[in-house]
Amino acid sequence: MKIPLALALLVSVPPLASGQPHAPAVLRYKASIDTVKYLFGPATPVARVKPGQIIEANTLDAFGNVLRTPGDTLSMVTGAGNPLTGPFYVEGAEPGDTLVVKVLDVQLDADQGVGVLGPGFGALTGTTYTPMLQAPLPERIWFYPIDKATNTARFTAKDSAFSVAIPLHPFLGCLGVAPAMGESRSSATPGEWGGNMDSPQVSVGHTVYLPVNVPGALLYFGDGHAAQGDGEIAGTGIEIAMRVRLQVDVRKHRTIAWPRFENDQSLMALGAVRPLDDALRIAFTELIGWIKADYGLSEVDSYELLTKVARIHLNEMVDPNYVVVASIDKQFCRRG
Amino acid sequence: MKIPLALALLVSVPPLASGQPHAPAVLRYKASIDTVKYLFGPATPVARVKPGQIIEANTLDAFGNVLRTPGDTLSMVTGAGNPLTGPFYVEGAEPGDTLVVKVLDVQLDADQGVGVLGPGFGALTGTTYTPMLQAPLPERIWFYPIDKATNTARFTAKDSAFSVAIPLHPFLGCLGVAPAMGESRSSATPGEWGGNMDSPQVSVGHTVYLPVNVPGALLYFGDGHAAQGDGEIAGTGIEIAMRVRLQVDVRKHRTIAWPRFENDQSLMALGAVRPLDDALRIAFTELIGWIKADYGLSEVDSYELLTKVARIHLNEMVDPNYVVVASIDKQFCRRG
Amino acid sequence: MKIPLALALLVSVPPLASGQPHAPAVLRYKASIDTVKYLFGPATPVARVKPGQIIEANTLDAFGNVLRTPGDTLSMVTGAGNPLTGPFYVEGAEPGDTLVVKVLDVQLDADQGVGVLGPGFGALTGTTYTPMLQAPLPERIWFYPIDKATNTARFTAKDSAFSVAIPLHPFLGCLGVAPAMGESRSSATPGEWGGNMDSPQVSVGHTVYLPVNVPGALLYFGDGHAAQGDGEIAGTGIEIAMRVRLQVDVRKHRTIAWPRFENDQSLMALGAVRPLDDALRIAFTELIGWIKADYGLSEVDSYELLTKVARIHLNEMVDPNYVVVASIDKQFCRRG
Amino acid sequence: MKIPLALALLVSVPPLASGQPHAPAVLRYKASIDTVKYLFGPATPVARVKPGQIIEANTLDAFGNVLRTPGDTLSMVTGAGNPLTGPFYVEGAEPGDTLVVKVLDVQLDADQGVGVLGPGFGALTGTTYTPMLQAPLPERIWFYPIDKATNTARFTAKDSAFSVAIPLHPFLGCLGVAPAMGESRSSATPGEWGGNMDSPQVSVGHTVYLPVNVPGALLYFGDGHAAQGDGEIAGTGIEIAMRVRLQVDVRKHRTIAWPRFENDQSLMALGAVRPLDDALRIAFTELIGWIKADYGLSEVDSYELLTKVARIHLNEMVDPNYVVVASIDKQFCRRG
Repeated sequence: MKIPLALALLVSVPPLASGQPHAPAVLRYKASIDTVKYLFGPATPVARVKPGQIIEANTLDAFGNVLRTPGDTLSMVTGAGNPLTGPFYVEGAEPGDTLVVKVLDVQLDADQGVGVLGPGFGALTGTTYTPMLQAPLPERIWFYPIDKATNTARFTAKDSAFSVAIPLHPFLGCLGVAPAMGESRSSATPGEWGGNMDSPQVSVGHTVYLPVNVPGALLYFGDGHAAQGDGEIAGTGIEIAMRVRLQVDVRKHRTIAWPRFENDQSLMALGAVRPLDDALRIAFTELIGWIKADYGLSEVDSYELLTKVARIHLNEMVDPNYVVVASIDKQFCRRG
Repeated sequence: MKIPLALALLVSVPPLASGQPHAPAVLRYKASIDTVKYLFGPATPVARVKPGQIIEANTLDAFGNVLRTPGDTLSMVTGAGNPLTGPFYVEGAEPGDTLVVKVLDVQLDADQGVGVLGPGFGALTGTTYTPMLQAPLPERIWFYPIDKATNTARFTAKDSAFSVAIPLHPFLGCLGVAPAMGESRSSATPGEWGGNMDSPQVSVGHTVYLPVNVPGALLYFGDGHAAQGDGEIAGTGIEIAMRVRLQVDVRKHRTIAWPRFENDQSLMALGAVRPLDDALRIAFTELIGWIKADYGLSEVDSYELLTKVARIHLNEMVDPNYVVVASIDKQFCRRG
Repeated sequence: MKIPLALALLVSVPPLASGQPHAPAVLRYKASIDTVKYLFGPATPVARVKPGQIIEANTLDAFGNVLRTPGDTLSMVTGAGNPLTGPFYVEGAEPGDTLVVKVLDVQLDADQGVGVLGPGFGALTGTTYTPMLQAPLPERIWFYPIDKATNTARFTAKDSAFSVAIPLHPFLGCLGVAPAMGESRSSATPGEWGGNMDSPQVSVGHTVYLPVNVPGALLYFGDGHAAQGDGEIAGTGIEIAMRVRLQVDVRKHRTIAWPRFENDQSLMALGAVRPLDDALRIAFTELIGWIKADYGLSEVDSYELLTKVARIHLNEMVDPNYVVVASIDKQFCRRG
Repeated sequence: MKIPLALALLVSVPPLASGQPHAPAVLRYKASIDTVKYLFGPATPVARVKPGQIIEANTLDAFGNVLRTPGDTLSMVTGAGNPLTGPFYVEGAEPGDTLVVKVLDVQLDADQGVGVLGPGFGALTGTTYTPMLQAPLPERIWFYPIDKATNTARFTAKDSAFSVAIPLHPFLGCLGVAPAMGESRSSATPGEWGGNMDSPQVSVGHTVYLPVNVPGALLYFGDGHAAQGDGEIAGTGIEIAMRVRLQVDVRKHRTIAWPRFENDQSLMALGAVRPLDDALRIAFTELIGWIKADYGLSEVDSYELLTKVARIHLNEMVDPNYVVVASIDKQFCRRG
């Protein structure tokens, strides 16, 4: 899961299903606090891209790049959280198709990240949807300076003399499209449309598959994390601005119900709902469907095989929906 | 997590807190279908061991070694599932202490394992505690021949011509003590007393910590798995008889509420309850308490640090309680 | 909870906070399949109403009035479920205010209702968000002829010679406003904005309070039920078209987070999320806040009092969010 | 649900299935702190009763009758909570039978009750199984003097000048038998064996059905509540000592999986597990099975009928398992 930035730069662009003959055109886009969105849903596109094309864009951090200095507080954040770059209209994408997003590069676009413990947020405190009568934990903010030489971010404790370097694994917490049925959903929420998946899988070397629900799909992204633990239990990763390169493509007439990921090693399917039990059920049902469709095993054989070799990644239990990713090493789908 | 058997044989016995001067005495015990138990709770000990002593014993598989040949069915299993070897009375262990179990060796004791899809069992079907009106999936049994040369078990599909080798990672699905408050609990259930944790962490190289609730602790174990996927979603690992070497010790006056694991790399805390959301909350609260007590970070600093570097292992979602293990690499607790 | 229609006709219009001197003007609106909506969210209003004004309108049933005759199937339903009448723009309603909706009359607008068991829908089968591998229950449709003389609907079993009359309790399954943060949410979903609450409380004699999130609030309603059991476990009430009279008002600068209900006897607060545990937590936290604000008890005294006298109504466990209503008889809030 | 004591005294003893010709013998038993138990499980019976016989016995309150005066604290309670009277060996009861317990009388045996807010207990605070990092709510104790003239208990607020009378509805929070599979379970926990069901249904006029798991069934009871709100959200009812009259009987070769209740009006089935979602699924699946077996409707017709007429009682969400009771008015099972 830890892919050093140095390696990331060497990742070559894989051949595209769209079969374009030459180097794909690159669309460069610069997002700012004035152009970001806070919803996955219908909106005027900021640009149009063709299948096979690469988007180079920046993303603001989850707090709109506002928290910079000790003494800064959440009250300084004017918009909602997770400002999104986009939407990008992908030409030819129609409802019923699958949007393919290859993550070519994810680079930190700031020299420090930030972690925030906010009242009413986190897996181990009362929240909006799990309210408790106890007094909330007070707001706390940690800054994480980035050391490019060692490719780490530094955590420094607030209540004792302790400090440690954390290896970077940069990824986008938010990546998604306009939801089905005309819904618009907050950039705080993950779901069938992707959204705030907080998936370390949205990093270099991975391909993301998303259902297309509206013409053009309407791709949004943001919420970069320099690194994040499983569960994202206190509510944030190392939140930081990013520069990213994403290559989009379309699989015509291939319909999926939930986001999926793939890299050289593994097939990964995502479920996002509360409670975790049901997120797990979705992720595994989707993965079984994938194995059945693409590798020819029956549902019950896939179920049995997964009970012996599956891996689970529990992305987060702090957003309005919780996210589980079920995966299988491709070696176990191939005969051998 | 995958420790080849060949390596397992080379693991040396680490020094004991009990400080015994010479090679520890080894207690050898042979379990049979006539002496196994199906409960974690008060019972007449099969043997007494001293702190520092090593238990060498065998375990029957989850079905009492009954399923052997194609055509065998669950109806042939006469006892309950998960027959347990034990209990072993650990001298000097008193309520309020912590029992320490070092897993020195776990060896397969059969030439094939078995996986069973039973009606009303599994994460993706209705069960006793998540009943559904739909017709249950029919019973299916897969046999997994072991190949010692390649250290794998072979999965063969029932509905298509597909077969694949699965690397072994042998561990005990059940390890536990008599519960608190005088309870006796089925060997199907994990909880504060350990029990049916289905934790790949109960394997060579790991130390297991369990709360002592009754004099002598009363250690039981069984339910060997040759390998298992996360979530154990269809309900079984590769169930197989085992021969194990476990070294027991006692930490006097150190009280823990839930099982914990440790290996050279990581601290791991377990939560076992339904739904997964709460199992996760327990695991992380316990891990925060551990970091606070042994490494001196405040609760809130530990919480923030874990949100950046924690890992989660989701053992199973098929037993009466579900099991989540939260872990931190020790490098992140030490200053550096 | 069972209020006969005969009585419903006698309910007088209570005095309004808006203090209008004379009989309020009545806005009459006729909805059709061409004007209904399937989202709670921003949309062009179908009409504007003033505080104190009464809306007289009809609603289509959950299936667009399409299922009429034995042999009809769900495949005949062209739109999504739960077509909504509206939105109505309430003048003067601004974010931070509370919308007040008095339910003056709810009359059946058809001579039969319908109940549907649809694959992937219901509390006792696998669903979109609790998927199972078992074969789904097949689609079944029951028709419920209405007997105005006895004020009942008749259930007739499909698999045996059994029939029984069910007393009517007509209410609107859907009532809500545009959600916060710019979201648009499907008419299948309940939440902070009301929506598909499936609350028998949206019936004659009750006042509904909803948060105002956008100028004009944007009131929608639909999904009439002639009667419904707790939990709505198979997925539908007795679905039927309605004619309703609703009086709207605005409480300026009174902010609530979740829908509330009130009748002569009780205060009621709603929570809508998955799992039920958290829906219950929300409902009770809201009710405690209400008692504290309006009756002066401390949080902890309210908590203790509710543990002795609260009632819970579990509306449904079949929509994307589950709905719990916590209530207290007003006699227990007043000194005595 | 509110049955005044005065009425309770007039309830006649209904004819017994055991068909005894004369007034049944009454077994009188006096429990004390020295003879109570804290587990549902195998234990030496305190007495043996025949089918049809009446047990007259007392129960201590949930705190062993220790909390008496302002200033008393939970630290004074020496045993675990919920001391149980029993077990009573019911002659002729064998595994696979159903134990029938008719509640003939439940009388308060003290002049005040007590309610306790304990740290780590309650639906709206962190608990043992839903731990939170926030500081716990401090311990608080309310006393509820009983007024026999008005048949009420008085709540007096601690933080303001407020007081209100609460009508009594006396019932036993604990009633159960030895669990299946040899388990022994704490008197804090409800489950298949009954146990700490906190069911207002264990009151005069109700018959309780429990599965028999061991010879003699081994009936225990205790934890009297003078009154209780739905959900028991802060963790206690009005806890009080009781004197009870229970008539036991046995239905040979009738096997049930979970407790059931019946009164003149309704059939009621109970589910006890976490989360509430699954407790509801159990309760309704059991109720459907009951209707199918005794009234001849098919499963799917019962499912549809219940979605139109069922009622749910949510007993509590504070014990280690949560309790939901699903019910149907018998009028809806009979043709008409």
